Amino acid sequence: MKKSIVILGSTGSIGKQTLEVVAASDSMEIVGLAVMGNIDELENQIQRFKPKYVAVFDESKAKELKDRLRSNTAVLSGMEGLLELAVIEESDIVLNSVVGSIGLLPTLTAIRNGKTIALANKETLVVGGRLIMEEAKSHKVQILPVDSEHSAIFQCLQGEDYNNISKLILTASGGPFRGRTKESLVDVKYYEALKHPNWDMGKKISIDSATLMNKGLEVIEAKWLFEVEMDRIEVVVHPQSIIHSMVEFKDNSIIAQLGSPDMKLPIQYALTYPNREKGNTTKLNLRELSRLDFFQPNTDTFPCLDLAYEALRIGGTMPCVVNGANEVLVEKYLHEEIKFYDIPKYIEKAMIKHKSFQYNSIEDVLEVDNWVRNWLKSEI
Amino acid sequence: MKKSIVILGSTGSIGKQTLEVVAASDSMEIVGLAVMGNIDELENQIQRFKPKYVAVFDESKAKELKDRLRSNTAVLSGMEGLLELAVIEESDIVLNSVVGSIGLLPTLTAIRNGKTIALANKETLVVGGRLIMEEAKSHKVQILPVDSEHSAIFQCLQGEDYNNISKLILTASGGPFRGRTKESLVDVKYYEALKHPNWDMGKKISIDSATLMNKGLEVIEAKWLFEVEMDRIEVVVHPQSIIHSMVEFKDNSIIAQLGSPDMKLPIQYALTYPNREKGNTTKLNLRELSRLDFFQPNTDTFPCLDLAYEALRIGGTMPCVVNGANEVLVEKYLHEEIKFYDIPKYIEKAMIKHKSFQYNSIEDVLEVDNWVRNWLKSEI
Repeated sequence: MKKSIVILGSTGSIGKQTLEVVAASDSMEIVGLAVMGNIDELENQIQRFKPKYVAVFDESKAKELKDRLRSNTAVLSGMEGLLELAVIEESDIVLNSVVGSIGLLPTLTAIRNGKTIALANKETLVVGGRLIMEEAKSHKVQILPVDSEHSAIFQCLQGEDYNNISKLILTASGGPFRGRTKESLVDVKYYEALKHPNWDMGKKISIDSATLMNKGLEVIEAKWLFEVEMDRIEVVVHPQSIIHSMVEFKDNSIIAQLGSPDMKLPIQYALTYPNREKGNTTKLNLRELSRLDFFQPNTDTFPCLDLAYEALRIGGTMPCVVNGANEVLVEKYLHEEIKFYDIPKYIEKAMIKHKSFQYNSIEDVLEVDNWVRNWLKSEI
Repeated sequence: MKKSIVILGSTGSIGKQTLEVVAASDSMEIVGLAVMGNIDELENQIQRFKPKYVAVFDESKAKELKDRLRSNTAVLSGMEGLLELAVIEESDIVLNSVVGSIGLLPTLTAIRNGKTIALANKETLVVGGRLIMEEAKSHKVQILPVDSEHSAIFQCLQGEDYNNISKLILTASGGPFRGRTKESLVDVKYYEALKHPNWDMGKKISIDSATLMNKGLEVIEAKWLFEVEMDRIEVVVHPQSIIHSMVEFKDNSIIAQLGSPDMKLPIQYALTYPNREKGNTTKLNLRELSRLDFFQPNTDTFPCLDLAYEALRIGGTMPCVVNGANEVLVEKYLHEEIKFYDIPKYIEKAMIKHKSFQYNSIEDVLEVDNWVRNWLKSEI
């Protein structure tokens, strides 16, 4: 029996790499694909992977695809279609690689229907971590991390008692602007930020990597995934991106996961877990590595990391504010409507404006997410 | 209930560090200690740890201790005493840190009596690995590695399916003569070899580290402990001794164990396994590490590593010959009776002289061990 996989966000960077992993494996098949609106790419994917269902968030694009399509694939549409796809009976695992807090609802719906989740959409845990983890527990659902850092930590924790964790050590490449001064980045353009030295990633995460907000979101994600408090989550800059993260245990032993910087490895691990299968990534040749370096993050040049820690310290809906603000601001930065340091500046403003509270439902969270997006529109 | 521990070789380097680990823990106690002949040190240990039994290999020293002692501790003697101590009912775990192939019989006896083994005596597996592992399996006994490299690998393999191993990567500091040429080592003295850059160890293992034979013996040990063939065991020189070893899995993911170079960590892990307890070793501060390097071993300057691989390739009793010859030659080198490169030279001669065969009993192995020791005496 092959493992049946649904991908939410199949035309994004992670989605496409997931399809490569599935194509190279004998043990998996695609039963469902969801996209925002890129139906040309989706059509190619349908031809190649023959999914039983697809979902297109954009209703008019969904209609267009339906008219075009000559296969038996059922076309669902809108958020409703995404949610329907997230819970189809035929799937064993839902890989969520949608970008942004829009991934929250499908994740929650899949969890409530007992689906194993491979989670690449870190915003889900950043904005609704407590609720998501509670729901996962009560529905006995496993959330498998796809982020390379969290996959690394998850691999390091196999066979270990989580009570013996002393510290999680997230490694950061430092992004494309590592070593730069604040002054030199004042007028930096988005296309410079998109040139990541090690990882080939989508636009949103590339900017997040340049501001170090990506690492901040990962700290929040790690807190929820591994139930470790923030004072025991450390970030270390490791420019070579060879050690993908580590766990320190209370006996001072550190377990680390290493590999080539290739997302196909953590994607495959999540899909084959608890097994491992032959990999198609490049093998790491340690004898060819000349050195591995480790530095303290420069939070003067990259204030977003501290803002994320501060949001986590405040708790409640504050991480949701940081994430929502960041999504809007990155979008504006990509359209050259704001400058690089406007990202942390307006995140901080939003944090000051918002009174954090303990959320009790996904609606609470979505309301705050909505508030911060609207507030920023009026502010900028 | 505290874990009751017997230490074979309590006055050696590993033995003393084991006592430190036990002293610092609330969960362990000493029930038995065995030494070769250092009764002065043993007497101090008896006063401090109040073991129920001790054993002294040297009969006359045992008698002397018996006369001296005013405590209730029972004094056993000779190999018989060691074997008796290895199987006392009161113990939960036997830590064997005797140096050399003399550790073989006590290990085997303990296994046959169902005792969990913490094994620091690598010669046991080098000379009789197949037999030891067969006996351990049939008596359902766990052999827990104490060597830092094997402990690292064992930690990396927790929760993993051994069938998914693609390669074991043993790290080597390179020893005190790393980077030196063959010419410059022709007349090198034993006391220069004893100055190890990272690890504080006993004399025998320090010389083995200088010749790289230590790594060769570890490759053989790893083959038996983890049931991995030699072509999937790689040695990488890593001068900082921070990564203690690694496992590459078939998906190309590498799991590594890191820590300060302090034997108390692997000793404690073996004694507390499968749990971990608070450690008293120095925490590793990654931000303070400037770099980690990896090199290919120089087998021209250090031919012993290749000799060990060759012995493993031939199999049968050949590793026993290499080990026995090495023990004699290191002893002679420490007494300045031979030169540094006489160690590999005579090991190779012994290998050429010996016709390897598949051993069927511990007596077979001990006979070969005895033969090589006598042959070397006549040869040098």
